[in-house]
Amino acid sequence: MMEYTVVSSRVRLARNLADTRFPSRASLSEVEKVEKTVVHAAKNLFDASFYRMSELGDSEKNYLVERRLISPALAESVYGSALIKKDKSLSVMMMEEDHIRSQSFASGLDLETCFSAVKEFDLALRSKASLAFDKSLGFLTACPTNVGTGMRASVMMFLPALTTLGKVGELEEELKNANLTIRGALGEGTKADGCIYQISNGISLGISEETIINRVSSAAERVRLIEGDLLDAYYSREKIALEDAVFRAYAILTSARILSQKELEGLVVNVKIGTMLGLISIDHVNLDELTFMCKPFSLVRLTGCGNSSLERDITRANTVRNILKGKED
Amino acid sequence: MMEYTVVSSRVRLARNLADTRFPSRASLSEVEKVEKTVVHAAKNLFDASFYRMSELGDSEKNYLVERRLISPALAESVYGSALIKKDKSLSVMMMEEDHIRSQSFASGLDLETCFSAVKEFDLALRSKASLAFDKSLGFLTACPTNVGTGMRASVMMFLPALTTLGKVGELEEELKNANLTIRGALGEGTKADGCIYQISNGISLGISEETIINRVSSAAERVRLIEGDLLDAYYSREKIALEDAVFRAYAILTSARILSQKELEGLVVNVKIGTMLGLISIDHVNLDELTFMCKPFSLVRLTGCGNSSLERDITRANTVRNILKGKED
Repeated sequence: MMEYTVVSSRVRLARNLADTRFPSRASLSEVEKVEKTVVHAAKNLFDASFYRMSELGDSEKNYLVERRLISPALAESVYGSALIKKDKSLSVMMMEEDHIRSQSFASGLDLETCFSAVKEFDLALRSKASLAFDKSLGFLTACPTNVGTGMRASVMMFLPALTTLGKVGELEEELKNANLTIRGALGEGTKADGCIYQISNGISLGISEETIINRVSSAAERVRLIEGDLLDAYYSREKIALEDAVFRAYAILTSARILSQKELEGLVVNVKIGTMLGLISIDHVNLDELTFMCKPFSLVRLTGCGNSSLERDITRANTVRNILKGKED
Repeated sequence: MMEYTVVSSRVRLARNLADTRFPSRASLSEVEKVEKTVVHAAKNLFDASFYRMSELGDSEKNYLVERRLISPALAESVYGSALIKKDKSLSVMMMEEDHIRSQSFASGLDLETCFSAVKEFDLALRSKASLAFDKSLGFLTACPTNVGTGMRASVMMFLPALTTLGKVGELEEELKNANLTIRGALGEGTKADGCIYQISNGISLGISEETIINRVSSAAERVRLIEGDLLDAYYSREKIALEDAVFRAYAILTSARILSQKELEGLVVNVKIGTMLGLISIDHVNLDELTFMCKPFSLVRLTGCGNSSLERDITRANTVRNILKGKED
């Protein structure tokens, strides 16, 4: 069965070159120095593509944002660029808030894999360049919250029962005591669309990378258990209402001829609940992948469909229907 | 393929006994006289059940109203009664607006069959009793609009395209010129739930029964053609939107675990459109029958389910799903 409670893991490291102004005040030659350093460091590590934001069209930038390979802030920046590993498991953003932010992704709960990937790049980077580092504080960053390890370890979690029962606030308080934060899927200030939240370390100072990863992993494990228990209890209380929602959602996904992304995401919540409760079995499809694939720019890129809202909604409906029904189309 | 445009036909005759006060002013002995006359007239014609409204419970009365075997007015009357043919193709209401209102039903467009059934009863009635009749006016009735033949020939029609395109008003004007009326399915002052309308003769004076039947039949044939053309044209203009609505509706009907009658009726509209356009084929189910069967009192009677709204909604969902999927349950 697909793991839907822990959607994915991510580790990112924030780094800045020594004796170089932070992005908000950097000169063009400093921008070029950062780009060269990153490309040089990655050269013998992995195959990657280099993208300068100023040279990308809107659809390409939006596609990268949709896939979470770059941040919306980077997409809008004038001097930003990104180096993205071909298999899309790792990306390095340049001239976002910091000079260099490397991030690595894995599906499910696997912060260790993410950490070793960014660590490998970070070691290469350190061997090629002198980084802004303070013996007592650690790595220096544009925002004080990232000073220290410069690391954020985060886990995306699907928490429908906690959401429905209004218990996310409670969880937030608990996590705060362990210096962890929970927020909407797209980061600070975003809403938890599709009941997806990000749990991550709140501080990165005075604490080792390993400790951060252990804390976030343990919290994710605990939250997974809480969510599972709450969902089971909710199901035994609201059996028919929940089954109604699950089977309707699946029926609409496999029948609609016009489907907006917003509706898709709402329906996917219920279908994932259905698979978690064993009400339906769709092992041939990762519904999170399907949702990503259907985001506007990703969909146009994937299918070559027209870029009007209606054309996308029709193509999305056909794509979802065919994939769920196991047809190649 | 099921005929969904013309749902059903009905002919009713209004009669009153001579020298007997109209229902609103009748004495108890006059009520008894009417009852006896009707029972006596029907005796050798068909097997029937006799129901006195004062002796029926609410659920029984509501069931008869749901099946359109009696009017809501009769159900509420103190001295009303009904004689209902076992196969439910004919019912005689007593002490409603008139002393005696016999009505016969047929599915599809078949006013002739309805007329011959009520005519047979009417001839028997006339042979047993003296009716209120005026040589120049014809049969006398409580409301002047029924004076003459005392007949109303009506056809229930499903008109989704005319409804959606807002053309029912136009049609109403046209029909008015031919002394025909169109109104909501449950008669005067009711709304056209489920896009179902009743077309019938507006007057019954100075015109023969045959002429009434011919006029209403021809109008129904014409409206059927208009509706068919409009629906085809609408479909070619709004192909995908219509298919979306049709396939979603069918998917929900075959998946929901909780289903209100109101939602059922809305979804059935779209599924019927789908079968009329050949988008889906469900020849094993008459969706109009299914809708009738799921009305609250009919459903409780049929399935023996509890009479709370939720219990009915659950039972309705199960019934609809199983019948559409061809399961006996």
